[in-house]
Amino acid sequence: MKWLRFKQDGEPCLGLVEGSHVLRYRGDPFGANEPTGERLALADLDWLPPCVPGKVVALWNNFRALADKNGWTPPTEPLWFLKSPGSVTGPHQAIPAPPAAVGRISYEGELAIVIGRRARAVKPEEAASHIFGYTCANDVTAIELLQRDPAFPQWSRAKSFDGFCPLGPVIETEFDPASAHVITRVGGRERQNYPLADMFFPPQELVSRLSHDITLEPGDVILCGTSLGVLPMKPGTPVEVEIPGIGTLANLFA
Amino acid sequence: MKWLRFKQDGEPCLGLVEGSHVLRYRGDPFGANEPTGERLALADLDWLPPCVPGKVVALWNNFRALADKNGWTPPTEPLWFLKSPGSVTGPHQAIPAPPAAVGRISYEGELAIVIGRRARAVKPEEAASHIFGYTCANDVTAIELLQRDPAFPQWSRAKSFDGFCPLGPVIETEFDPASAHVITRVGGRERQNYPLADMFFPPQELVSRLSHDITLEPGDVILCGTSLGVLPMKPGTPVEVEIPGIGTLANLFA
Repeated sequence: MKWLRFKQDGEPCLGLVEGSHVLRYRGDPFGANEPTGERLALADLDWLPPCVPGKVVALWNNFRALADKNGWTPPTEPLWFLKSPGSVTGPHQAIPAPPAAVGRISYEGELAIVIGRRARAVKPEEAASHIFGYTCANDVTAIELLQRDPAFPQWSRAKSFDGFCPLGPVIETEFDPASAHVITRVGGRERQNYPLADMFFPPQELVSRLSHDITLEPGDVILCGTSLGVLPMKPGTPVEVEIPGIGTLANLFA
Repeated sequence: MKWLRFKQDGEPCLGLVEGSHVLRYRGDPFGANEPTGERLALADLDWLPPCVPGKVVALWNNFRALADKNGWTPPTEPLWFLKSPGSVTGPHQAIPAPPAAVGRISYEGELAIVIGRRARAVKPEEAASHIFGYTCANDVTAIELLQRDPAFPQWSRAKSFDGFCPLGPVIETEFDPASAHVITRVGGRERQNYPLADMFFPPQELVSRLSHDITLEPGDVILCGTSLGVLPMKPGTPVEVEIPGIGTLANLFA
């Protein structure tokens, strides 16, 4: 099932994809919900991010190919930071370029886990029942700002400008990350194409380990980290993160 | 005015302190509200944190005395990270000790700014009108975990365990930080006593500068950083953060 959110008459609405249409639902995707009977064309949708996370956890150094290339030591535990929930934006929304003094901005195409049920110190084999589904994410980053202060790497700040966390287009509940790829296109050109099987900590292990640190709540999102092919982008560039099996998250870096 | 939140019949309630009592209010502390006419004794209160922040921003290296002692270069801009909103807890709640493998845990007594009105790229002279008031905070930290991975300081993780952000007891709307002190007592012994005038970036400048990075929303909290006197604490230790003019935030590290 592919869940999404959209705006109608200024109100946020829930929907399920059916071919080229959306069946509108009322209620909670993570709890009780029912169809309203209304049916809209996907093409006409005013998109919203597919969930409203209270927390956006993001991984550093979670792909072997990128660690090998950069000479990073394989992590002994998930290494994560928080992005501001205010940075979340939806499909087809602009990612506003910060002032020039912030320096260069890069895309990072990533798989995002969406939590469906509260997770507190769960075992890896229990983690699947806490995962609602998966969506595409762009972990937009101010790469120069990140290391501008030699004493304090500014992870949260460099990743939290308004619009720096596009999510979508849908949450796919039947997705299997083990055999899938993440493809990022920038200005129409493929820049990333990497297998999700290359993660140091795959989704169920991430959810289990993180849930020992912090309580994960329905709607919370975990960005699984990125791999090879990250580059800066210029304002005016369209950027797409495609994960076959989920969909394509398209935004304009403006 | 001293605003607070408490629980009654399992529901969160809003109140204003009047001497040794609380006048119950309905509505939004940052918007429309009115007294219900109900009056409760402060001593009987089932306390909640005084606000429900969507974001908890926390400062590193914001006090001259601590920078001097540690040989840190004065920052040229506010250096901040995000704590999980899930780490927020109220007065008189226990701070659960994480598993022993996480290592030593320290308190950090701090002043917290509470945002009352959305702030997006505001000037320093406009910042006061976006500040609702101030409360006490304990920026609890897993000090060994923070630097456990040499390649990636784990700021968000070391500061985000459940209960690692006690806030309260009240939000004081008339507080002037310029002449106030933060006092931290651990096991009844004074461990911190530092002037808020010693900040590199005082509250109005912090709000202005941060609002150029991220949009601040009503209820969001900014922890202003700590100064001298931080030490580890043992499970079973009571810890109090007092800011005269606001009140005393008391918790048990359990």
